[in-house]
Amino acid sequence: MSKYVYMFGAGQTEGKSNMKDLLGGKGANLAEMANLNIPVPPGFTITTEACTHYLAVKGLTDEMRGEILKAVKELEKSTGKKLGDAKDPLLVSVRSGARISMPGMMDTVLNLGLNDQSVIGLANKTENARFAFDCYRRFISMFGDVVLGIEFNVFEKVLEKRKESSKAASDTDLSAEDLKVLVNEFKEIVKKEKGFDFPQEPEKQMFMAIDAVFDSWNSQRAITYRKINNIPGDWGTAVNVQSMVYGNMGDMSGTGVAFTRDPSTGENKFFGEYLINAQGEDVVSGIRTPAEISTLEKKIPAAYKQLVDICQTLEKHFKDMQDIEFTIEESKLYMLQTRGGKRTARAAAKIAVDMVEEGLIDKKTAIMRVTPAQINQLLHPMIDPSVKQNVIAKGLPASPGAAVGKVVFTPEDAEKMKEMGEKIILVRTETSPEDIGGMYVAEGVLTVRGGMTSHAAVVGRGMGKPCVVGCGEITISPEDKKFFVGNIEIKELDFITIDGSTGCVIMGEMPLIPPEISPEIEVLLGWADAVRDLGVRTNADTPEDAQKALDLGAEGIGLCRTEHMFFEENRIPVVRAMIMSETKEEREKYLEILLPMQREDFLGILRVMQGKPVTIRYLDPPLHEFLPKVYELQELLADLKCKNAPQEEITKIGNMIHRVVNLHELNPMLGHRGCRLGITYPEIYNMQTRAIFEAACQLVKEGVVVKPEIMIPLVGHVKELEITRKDVEETAAQVMKECGITIDYTIGTMIELPRAVITADKIAVHADFFSFGTNDLTQTTFGFSRDDVAKFLPLYIEHDVLPEDPFAVLDREGVGELMDIGVKRGRATKPGLKIGICGEHGGEPHSIRFAYEIGLDYVSCSPYRVPIARLTGAQAAIEKADKK
Amino acid sequence: MSKYVYMFGAGQTEGKSNMKDLLGGKGANLAEMANLNIPVPPGFTITTEACTHYLAVKGLTDEMRGEILKAVKELEKSTGKKLGDAKDPLLVSVRSGARISMPGMMDTVLNLGLNDQSVIGLANKTENARFAFDCYRRFISMFGDVVLGIEFNVFEKVLEKRKESSKAASDTDLSAEDLKVLVNEFKEIVKKEKGFDFPQEPEKQMFMAIDAVFDSWNSQRAITYRKINNIPGDWGTAVNVQSMVYGNMGDMSGTGVAFTRDPSTGENKFFGEYLINAQGEDVVSGIRTPAEISTLEKKIPAAYKQLVDICQTLEKHFKDMQDIEFTIEESKLYMLQTRGGKRTARAAAKIAVDMVEEGLIDKKTAIMRVTPAQINQLLHPMIDPSVKQNVIAKGLPASPGAAVGKVVFTPEDAEKMKEMGEKIILVRTETSPEDIGGMYVAEGVLTVRGGMTSHAAVVGRGMGKPCVVGCGEITISPEDKKFFVGNIEIKELDFITIDGSTGCVIMGEMPLIPPEISPEIEVLLGWADAVRDLGVRTNADTPEDAQKALDLGAEGIGLCRTEHMFFEENRIPVVRAMIMSETKEEREKYLEILLPMQREDFLGILRVMQGKPVTIRYLDPPLHEFLPKVYELQELLADLKCKNAPQEEITKIGNMIHRVVNLHELNPMLGHRGCRLGITYPEIYNMQTRAIFEAACQLVKEGVVVKPEIMIPLVGHVKELEITRKDVEETAAQVMKECGITIDYTIGTMIELPRAVITADKIAVHADFFSFGTNDLTQTTFGFSRDDVAKFLPLYIEHDVLPEDPFAVLDREGVGELMDIGVKRGRATKPGLKIGICGEHGGEPHSIRFAYEIGLDYVSCSPYRVPIARLTGAQAAIEKADKK
Repeated sequence: MSKYVYMFGAGQTEGKSNMKDLLGGKGANLAEMANLNIPVPPGFTITTEACTHYLAVKGLTDEMRGEILKAVKELEKSTGKKLGDAKDPLLVSVRSGARISMPGMMDTVLNLGLNDQSVIGLANKTENARFAFDCYRRFISMFGDVVLGIEFNVFEKVLEKRKESSKAASDTDLSAEDLKVLVNEFKEIVKKEKGFDFPQEPEKQMFMAIDAVFDSWNSQRAITYRKINNIPGDWGTAVNVQSMVYGNMGDMSGTGVAFTRDPSTGENKFFGEYLINAQGEDVVSGIRTPAEISTLEKKIPAAYKQLVDICQTLEKHFKDMQDIEFTIEESKLYMLQTRGGKRTARAAAKIAVDMVEEGLIDKKTAIMRVTPAQINQLLHPMIDPSVKQNVIAKGLPASPGAAVGKVVFTPEDAEKMKEMGEKIILVRTETSPEDIGGMYVAEGVLTVRGGMTSHAAVVGRGMGKPCVVGCGEITISPEDKKFFVGNIEIKELDFITIDGSTGCVIMGEMPLIPPEISPEIEVLLGWADAVRDLGVRTNADTPEDAQKALDLGAEGIGLCRTEHMFFEENRIPVVRAMIMSETKEEREKYLEILLPMQREDFLGILRVMQGKPVTIRYLDPPLHEFLPKVYELQELLADLKCKNAPQEEITKIGNMIHRVVNLHELNPMLGHRGCRLGITYPEIYNMQTRAIFEAACQLVKEGVVVKPEIMIPLVGHVKELEITRKDVEETAAQVMKECGITIDYTIGTMIELPRAVITADKIAVHADFFSFGTNDLTQTTFGFSRDDVAKFLPLYIEHDVLPEDPFAVLDREGVGELMDIGVKRGRATKPGLKIGICGEHGGEPHSIRFAYEIGLDYVSCSPYRVPIARLTGAQAAIEKADKK
Repeated sequence: MSKYVYMFGAGQTEGKSNMKDLLGGKGANLAEMANLNIPVPPGFTITTEACTHYLAVKGLTDEMRGEILKAVKELEKSTGKKLGDAKDPLLVSVRSGARISMPGMMDTVLNLGLNDQSVIGLANKTENARFAFDCYRRFISMFGDVVLGIEFNVFEKVLEKRKESSKAASDTDLSAEDLKVLVNEFKEIVKKEKGFDFPQEPEKQMFMAIDAVFDSWNSQRAITYRKINNIPGDWGTAVNVQSMVYGNMGDMSGTGVAFTRDPSTGENKFFGEYLINAQGEDVVSGIRTPAEISTLEKKIPAAYKQLVDICQTLEKHFKDMQDIEFTIEESKLYMLQTRGGKRTARAAAKIAVDMVEEGLIDKKTAIMRVTPAQINQLLHPMIDPSVKQNVIAKGLPASPGAAVGKVVFTPEDAEKMKEMGEKIILVRTETSPEDIGGMYVAEGVLTVRGGMTSHAAVVGRGMGKPCVVGCGEITISPEDKKFFVGNIEIKELDFITIDGSTGCVIMGEMPLIPPEISPEIEVLLGWADAVRDLGVRTNADTPEDAQKALDLGAEGIGLCRTEHMFFEENRIPVVRAMIMSETKEEREKYLEILLPMQREDFLGILRVMQGKPVTIRYLDPPLHEFLPKVYELQELLADLKCKNAPQEEITKIGNMIHRVVNLHELNPMLGHRGCRLGITYPEIYNMQTRAIFEAACQLVKEGVVVKPEIMIPLVGHVKELEITRKDVEETAAQVMKECGITIDYTIGTMIELPRAVITADKIAVHADFFSFGTNDLTQTTFGFSRDDVAKFLPLYIEHDVLPEDPFAVLDREGVGELMDIGVKRGRATKPGLKIGICGEHGGEPHSIRFAYEIGLDYVSCSPYRVPIARLTGAQAAIEKADKK
């Protein structure tokens, strides 16, 4: 028989911090604090197992109810109060607490246990009727919202009306009498909305609240959050029932949240916010703008000192930066929560590096403390400082990085515009969990209200999404789809730029540049390199990209796409003429023009890479990508005809249409591309070989070390590689002979077709290396055209047909399984065969881990993803070592 | 040490008929005939091993030369003649003879051993100077052509000149003096062309001829033939050196070829042709038109009787119809060759069935005697007898079946036009091995000269290609690219129809209908069904096709493509409107119109199939196939604009363009199709389910048994099947409830994506059966778009990058290996899982064999391929049993 309930703080404490899976993060850490003799209001945790059982059998079992009631008795004993007592009632909070923090995603009920009798008892006991009725009206509205499903706005409107009629500026200006009226009005709302009276029996209240917490695990917003964050649905949530303490008992009371270090910069400095005379929800919801934590020292000095001490204790104990919640009830401090604090990438790196220096943790722990997603955050661009900024407003810098986009005002519009390919900035008064979807697709988020720990700020940081909050200067007019700053008017779809590092809101579309990587990140990535055994290369087609990647730690080029060189403005007409050539001779004429251009490309890249390996992939894409569009030509032709243009002009366009139509392919992705071009038109690949080796020879003469690796794309049958390899070797030998220079080089192939995977043992005979082209392999394995999936893939992901976009995150089950087969077969022929991956997946953490697991030698990714790959590679190595 | 030379007929005979691999077909059977005491001119065979060794070391070794010279000595001893003897010279033929017959592909030299001395000896010995010099001039020109590589035409021209100046109508009218002059002229040709004298030493002549035969194994035409017929290049050929006998020694001499039964109909009747006073090459080359074999009885009765007896002996001995060559030298009969005779499909079946009845062979042997290619021959269409034929000429019916195509006059033009997608008829004066490529791509072949055993006839029958030969009424004018029949003129690219069963040449494009299958084929296929354990189903989309397939022996429908039903003229506008619908409601409106139409389809098909399984595949193809082409709409729009058409018309077309462009996909083959449609627009599949089950219920009420199998296309992830299966089950249950009827049905899936193969274990959980869609699987495995491969696949096959078109013959190494994985994984989940194949490969013999090897339950193919599958399945089963 399972034990479903664990006590904490009430005499005995049954849990501890390593029981997060069972007690949730909040419950486990409440128990741990109690164990450390830190003042925690006593209570008990109902386990996550209870949740999953509850969801399975669709309700609490008698056994659970029994355990809960027994725990209530314990709690009554230790607090000396009784639930529903008319004189001194025990009041509790009921909160969710999952295994990992899901901010704002789950629901909370405070002040539970109040009813028409016990509110009098509370008033008498505290000698504060105003306080008691304030608690009661909060309880009714919160319970009504969270447990009974009545819209919170219904209560808010009545509250606003009451404030108006009483001429109260804020909630705290309402008198006890006002609040009594409000309690009755709120109870009427419940009666009207639900058809029954507000429940008066505290036990019934409690069980209803517990049910509501468990049920909320499967609310739409919770499911969405889990999906975005890859949290399994079967974890469930725990429920914490905890005796209440009050931050709203006057000026020596208050409540706040704090971080033991600055979560934005990582600076070792106590950081937080609080509100005097408020309950916890007031701070996190962002309804009132809180005060900076250090000012608390003057207001309630003893509590402040105790708080700072406790924070130091907690950090030393958990060996990590803590995010805490506290309440001060009439000068007495209570800790309500502690957990590892969310932080920016920069802060994560700084804290990790500092803690190593402070002797708190070792280097491997430090490496594991920064997530690849946080590194990704670093890769967000910043506003070019050399450009004048038209700053129209300033808010709080809640999540660093700059973002540019078109303004939208609702999450629905955000998702709609994103689908249309627009970059957007979501502008909201404040955000709530309902906004998650819109925030996810936005480049950045701007809110009018809320502090650094508001929903928008926490979620924004978590997503690595630039975010400016509490920007009170702006006024949103939702009907007009506009916002105003003074007399500046910004309409929907106008461009703005926000800077989450400074809080600036800037008119128009600012040029962005990539941020510098902080010194702590450098240190950390250096440590990562030392433990990593997976190589990290980059995909780069220009000397500039190559240099950038080297600066970010790339160890070579894993994919240099030669066709990108053909897209340049002065080349495309030549390339086009080459493609449209009807004969080999004509084609060779244009290739001769392209040769020196391509040689220059390779000179530049090989020079920058200074002896590091450079994998050059030969021309790959379908030729139609270089051709004019038929319908454009047809429009032109129709136009010329309508205008009675000279016949020769009409004929010329007519011929061009004919040729383009002739080259047209129904499915170019499966058409005449890759090595199929190299085999049907060997002169194209020969030109590329010549360009590479002429460049290489020239550099060697200059004393530069070069290490070219020739890569043949789209091989499906070993003969394709055999033939092109022979051509490359012949031309290379010819050029080297002409130059009197010998170049060390290798020839390998992309593995990007299922047939290449299946026959990898045969292909390996002629390959010095393999590189998985996972973009194409995903296309052919799934039978998905990357260009066309938008027609059904979003719906597939929404309806959970697929867990995620397989072009973003490598599909282990299908594509990954094929890769594993390819690796095994390739190495069965050549045991030490060097194998890498150069699709987009090479820079995606889950995919990098997979590449490491199946024994690849390196990943290759875009320059800005190189640090992600360095870190992920190191973490994968550490995890592997830990498993042993 | 290998033995390279085997004697036959000369006292001892060292070989026998089961040594074909070593001695070649001809050599082994010559030895066997000698063993049977059948008169064979004595000689010896140089083995195929000698050939491969010769080719490896690039020449005859001393060891081989020694063995050959020793054999010559033996031959001299047994014939009592000496090579090069001035009085009574030994003359020999040197012929190739590979393991299997390659008609006309290899080269022959006759009369070897003649020189300026021995020709006199021969003249004296035979008392026939004319004969001796005729032999000598033939020898020089044949040796000049085959061994020395001088164009045969050069000799022919001189011969023609000599005939003119001597006023000789034919070769036989030339006098001994004429021939002496000709000998000198021919020797001069050799001297002039080669710079050396015609070799006079018989040994040198012999070794040069042997070299030439071995070298010819790797001639272009031999390589081409081997490629077409899948004959390995490392088999090599044997060489037969055999003492000469002469059919050209006057009117009691002759030479001929014969079949022990009619190779066209299979009738048990001696069948053949001969020429009096001629050498063997004259018959097969088709230069003179020979006489029917039965007329020989009157001319040389004794020899004819002996010939008939020998033929019976041979047939009984080899238990198969024989194709023989013979020569009568002054009334004495010699057998030069015997081999299993090539025959038409109809003949093959009749002979096999007759021989079972005659007790010569058993049923299994009979089944193995007919090739799938022969069955394929039966599937060639015939001219619709109800249509009046404009017959312009009549030739010999050399290879049955009718063919329609555009006239071309050279094999080069044939290949060129075929590449452009034209159906062509190759018209030649006579064909030679150089024409093979052109014959291969032609629908049919028509020749002016040659008999039923001419090159064109033999090769045409072998290829199952309709062929009319010896059509002397027509005159070809190669320069004008025309042919004439009287004053009818047929130009290049004019349509003609030929009927290889009647010999008719018909003007224009005649309608063709499929032939009836002969009773013997029916019997044979019945026997095949009894030993076959691989199921044979058909791909049929209409009741007519279904009926045709049933008639041909199909055991069910393996693929009923519902989209084909949508292409009908009265449906396409509705389908188009359905596809272009912007909303579900609009789409449902059109689906409602389609529902009764589709229900009618299923009523028809299920009724015809009478309880046999019918696998119905839901809508699969990319929607754009149903849409108007954008450029057509654009042309229309441009036209309307130019004409200042009313604005509303312009707007309508404009909107249509917009919608079509919106639905446009870059790679529709990898796009929004298959079950992706069923998941995004469930109403489409629901309509199909409703149509099927409404039809099925109605039929059950009528007392018809139905067995529908629902097949979901393009599943790549198990969830796709899970979701669509649930939809089908729900709608089916609903319809069955409405009708008050229960239908037994199953739900399975196509396996046509690599991801489906790799995750077949998971997919099998929700599938009642699998069916491999090898067309799509080939596309995705190779990354080849079937619609676009024409850009490079012909070159790939020509340059041997790929052995064959993987869309025609299943690629075992890649696609096949994947299928094998899919079968194993699927059955790991469900041990008895029913698995079939329904791609085009299901009717191709190599692919059918493979399907059987990997344990599939059935193949499904187009109706006319059902007999091929029935036969191949049986042969595969027999081979498997034999291996055990």
